Amino acid sequence: MKYLDQINCPDDLKRIPRDELEAVAREIRGRIIDVVSKNGGHLASSLGVVELTIALHYVFDLPKDTLIWDVGHQSYAHKLLTGRHRSFDTLRKYKGISGFVKIKESPYDAFTVGHASTSISAGLGMCYAKALKKDKSNVVSIIGDGSMTAGLAYEGLNHAGDLQQKYIVILNDNDMSISANVGALSSYLSRTFSHKALQNMRNQFGQFLKSVPKIGDDMYGWAKRWEESFKTFVTPGMLFEAFNFDYFGPIDGHNLDHLIDILSNIKDPDSPVLLHVTTKKGKGYAPAEKNPVYFHGVGAFAIDTGKCPASKNAAPSYTSVFGKCMIELAKQNPCIVAVTAAMPEGTGLKQFAEHFADRFIDVGIAEQHAVTFAAGLAAKGAKPVVAIYSTFLQRAYDQILHDVCIDSHPVIFAIDRGGIVGEDGPTHHGLFDFSYLRSIPNMTVMAPMDENELVRMMQTAVAHQGPIALRYPRGAGQGVDVDYNAKAVDIGKAKVLRTGDDLLIIGIGRCVNDAMDAAELLSAQGIESTVVNARFVKPLDAKLILDLAGKIKNVVTIEENVLAGGFGSAILELICDNGVSGCRVNRVGVNDVFIEHGSQNELRKDYGIDARAVVAAGLKLCGEK
Amino acid sequence: MKYLDQINCPDDLKRIPRDELEAVAREIRGRIIDVVSKNGGHLASSLGVVELTIALHYVFDLPKDTLIWDVGHQSYAHKLLTGRHRSFDTLRKYKGISGFVKIKESPYDAFTVGHASTSISAGLGMCYAKALKKDKSNVVSIIGDGSMTAGLAYEGLNHAGDLQQKYIVILNDNDMSISANVGALSSYLSRTFSHKALQNMRNQFGQFLKSVPKIGDDMYGWAKRWEESFKTFVTPGMLFEAFNFDYFGPIDGHNLDHLIDILSNIKDPDSPVLLHVTTKKGKGYAPAEKNPVYFHGVGAFAIDTGKCPASKNAAPSYTSVFGKCMIELAKQNPCIVAVTAAMPEGTGLKQFAEHFADRFIDVGIAEQHAVTFAAGLAAKGAKPVVAIYSTFLQRAYDQILHDVCIDSHPVIFAIDRGGIVGEDGPTHHGLFDFSYLRSIPNMTVMAPMDENELVRMMQTAVAHQGPIALRYPRGAGQGVDVDYNAKAVDIGKAKVLRTGDDLLIIGIGRCVNDAMDAAELLSAQGIESTVVNARFVKPLDAKLILDLAGKIKNVVTIEENVLAGGFGSAILELICDNGVSGCRVNRVGVNDVFIEHGSQNELRKDYGIDARAVVAAGLKLCGEK
Repeated sequence: MKYLDQINCPDDLKRIPRDELEAVAREIRGRIIDVVSKNGGHLASSLGVVELTIALHYVFDLPKDTLIWDVGHQSYAHKLLTGRHRSFDTLRKYKGISGFVKIKESPYDAFTVGHASTSISAGLGMCYAKALKKDKSNVVSIIGDGSMTAGLAYEGLNHAGDLQQKYIVILNDNDMSISANVGALSSYLSRTFSHKALQNMRNQFGQFLKSVPKIGDDMYGWAKRWEESFKTFVTPGMLFEAFNFDYFGPIDGHNLDHLIDILSNIKDPDSPVLLHVTTKKGKGYAPAEKNPVYFHGVGAFAIDTGKCPASKNAAPSYTSVFGKCMIELAKQNPCIVAVTAAMPEGTGLKQFAEHFADRFIDVGIAEQHAVTFAAGLAAKGAKPVVAIYSTFLQRAYDQILHDVCIDSHPVIFAIDRGGIVGEDGPTHHGLFDFSYLRSIPNMTVMAPMDENELVRMMQTAVAHQGPIALRYPRGAGQGVDVDYNAKAVDIGKAKVLRTGDDLLIIGIGRCVNDAMDAAELLSAQGIESTVVNARFVKPLDAKLILDLAGKIKNVVTIEENVLAGGFGSAILELICDNGVSGCRVNRVGVNDVFIEHGSQNELRKDYGIDARAVVAAGLKLCGEK
Repeated sequence: MKYLDQINCPDDLKRIPRDELEAVAREIRGRIIDVVSKNGGHLASSLGVVELTIALHYVFDLPKDTLIWDVGHQSYAHKLLTGRHRSFDTLRKYKGISGFVKIKESPYDAFTVGHASTSISAGLGMCYAKALKKDKSNVVSIIGDGSMTAGLAYEGLNHAGDLQQKYIVILNDNDMSISANVGALSSYLSRTFSHKALQNMRNQFGQFLKSVPKIGDDMYGWAKRWEESFKTFVTPGMLFEAFNFDYFGPIDGHNLDHLIDILSNIKDPDSPVLLHVTTKKGKGYAPAEKNPVYFHGVGAFAIDTGKCPASKNAAPSYTSVFGKCMIELAKQNPCIVAVTAAMPEGTGLKQFAEHFADRFIDVGIAEQHAVTFAAGLAAKGAKPVVAIYSTFLQRAYDQILHDVCIDSHPVIFAIDRGGIVGEDGPTHHGLFDFSYLRSIPNMTVMAPMDENELVRMMQTAVAHQGPIALRYPRGAGQGVDVDYNAKAVDIGKAKVLRTGDDLLIIGIGRCVNDAMDAAELLSAQGIESTVVNARFVKPLDAKLILDLAGKIKNVVTIEENVLAGGFGSAILELICDNGVSGCRVNRVGVNDVFIEHGSQNELRKDYGIDARAVVAAGLKLCGEK
């Protein structure tokens, strides 16, 4: 590639004449489309900011100046311009380039991101630290309009306006977060001239014009200018100026010339500046422009058609089973309401939303609000099902504890993407929920071993009169038959799947299948295992587990969660609190590290959360026979 | 009391003629001042909303209509008008009336609160549930301007504007949250006519007026009206109308007539309405009007002077030792920056703020932002100390995990009010931090056994190159000498305080003192204990603890935290993972319940987290000798 092959750092980009930058943009798009078509990834948002990224690196001086990308899934062009063009083929592969911005990956990556809406707070902190050191370099946060929905972004904006440090925020407005954008403010961003007070004033002015004698062109010209003023006045500028930012824009985010000019002008401001840039998600690749939601995060696809090859795995995903289950449940129970935080497709609720429009609520990227809103729903008799990925539910920890659990409101948490999620890496794995949920009083925590059990647990959840969570993994189910009328599992009841006297293996969630595989392998080595599907992290089936542990003594637990305070830890507490003597417990799960990105299976193998790990633990306890 | 004695429910209030309501307000104020002067409590905010509360109950029809008080510390008048006048003497006492709004306490309490900024989200959820049931009653959320700083409030407002349900928000604007208010938007609320675009337009208009021939009074009159329009236009109305709320106000929150009229007018709206009410914190009690920060949350005081009696306990509080320590540390280390979320006084940083104005940052009620902001500070070389109460830090769980710990930024968390806080009750106890913090990789978690160890741990924290938390209790220290130059404790090193062969007691934090007391009591019964001050929840002093547990076998742990996943659970994991056989562990801590309000000592005794509980556990393990 004529240009990219020569660009090892932003200085190389700066040497390219300005009139050739559009060619650079074309190369970047080609490279991104090519790699993502093979590896999968966040295509649409990265294509949308190619020109903006080039302009930023052309004007600012990294890493002295600091760029902070919100979420970071739009950073592919940034990676290509900062020394990662050659390794870009490894995007999202195990031990390869991350799909997000990552401090450890490059000195040009200023802040590790993955969750939305952190860029203003982090950027402002960096501004402050730089000011203390009399460092006059720039900090630029680039944030999408979708991320603006989250409270964290608002808190940052509010504080930035107060501090009045040198700081630049770029609002990347593509009128869409992951799905279509939600919220009054979002519609406000694309609104002009609809403001009530403004309307009143225009009417008054009109009446005034009628009431005075004709005074010639002066009046007309002034009225015209006034109308123009109003346009700026009642566009987002007004809002951001309320936050004490100087507002510029909106400008076309695909016009390199304009971008470079305006960035050069606003560089080195005295106080906070907001530049409003409008971009098109998927820009430059027709299928993605047409369907930016599908191409937000996409698997491998054929470049010419934009189509993904049919999945080899015929089993439906846990997500899709959840989605269907919700429709069945909602048909039977008029109180059921689904709440999502900007993830109607990701959580499998797209069809539910079509069937039950008035019982489907997308609050935008606002997990805190989603949970407290659900508490309010439950307090007045509705049966809310809050469907949020495990990693994003972390945002609502306090709301779960304080707003839902203290009063034991019957809110159902459908926690998708529990465990290792794969290619999205450390910011996206759902490895903490067992620990943080089970320590909260009044909470019930379940995890199904397969997609049929998911349906049964949803029945359990709907019948339960308190907060209850079920957590299931990303990706294909186990391929079992699903009965959407299957009956509920009893709260706190585990199930023995296999019996044997040498070893007790207690699994939770998807890992129960690993436990069964391990039992088979151990049996071939002469070790006979009892395998328990715990079903519940809380409450545990105390009687069953204590009876078995008292008899078998050698216990292995397996979970896809951190070991600290997790499911195995709960088993330990149970055994210890009940004074079962002589038990030896070996816990399989995630050690005290953040897990990198890679395929789910690679990671499960390398981080030791699979049947092999259970076999090793069993052999250690029982000795090789 | 002439009126209050007759008011058992809001209907009784409604029977009182409107012109006598001011007398009711006076009685309510008297009752509040009287009880709070004895029991302590949140005086200033409750005095500020007496008229507003009367007007709300006069106009709305509870409990059919729903009032949601944000935070709930301003709800004393509401309690007095809803059947709790007679029991009000028990305010904040163990098994008495709660100092916050609490569903379990009264059918008039619609939502349990304690943390700020939940009222809009919860209220909106209730609106939605009511609409689904075709219930046409009103939902009214009352939120202070301070609470508006939090992202959760913004998320709720944004969603409310989008949903366009029947809903009323009352902004109780006292220009102050707990301390003076923070944030661009806050200053915006009290700003008029400073908007840049507005200024431009006024200038243009002025020039226009000069440029056209004199056209008489019409023009002057219109210009005048236009100026008035502008005033409304650029006051907060504009902002809330951007959120798609109909805006009314600001009106005087102490004028009962106006309040009742306007509430009657805005009752039963078609879409979201925001009423802006200005009130004075502490209204009607001169000392509280003069010093609303002091009288925000206050202990017992003399009504005539407003002075609190000198504390019987001469030991300085952990909070004040932390505050002094910060000043000493900051003198030595120019990188240290203190961050608080609207609690400069509460966290003991008031003096620090005076000494190091540019290294003190109050972000307002915005814990999420505080933590991510600190991550940004740390990423650029500053040494942030984030001082937040344990219970409020729950709001920032995801920011701790995602923004601080993934990249191991050296942020120090000074977690005040860890453990049982006392009279503020279940929404305010800090009983979960050990569990949720220790499950996060890269995090170090400490707790000092006394105020001198707090100083030593701050030294440890400042020297550490990663995220580190220290958690200490509310209230007086142990009364030990404090050496502000004391040397750091070594990370992961525990300390043996006493030796004995029968029992191993491992304590953390303040509870180590209970452990020592228990050892004394047990010794009197012939049981000799080794007592370990663990100092670290993470990393544990594995070698020391395993050696001792392997020898002594009988282990009691004590912590002021939930047992699920807490400190004792970490000890169990350690013992189990290292295959120490024959150990019996009895964990003392908080069972799986939310602890009610009451004095710290009453609660510690009744919930079994004291020396007595350790003695009982020790006797159980060792048998009575």
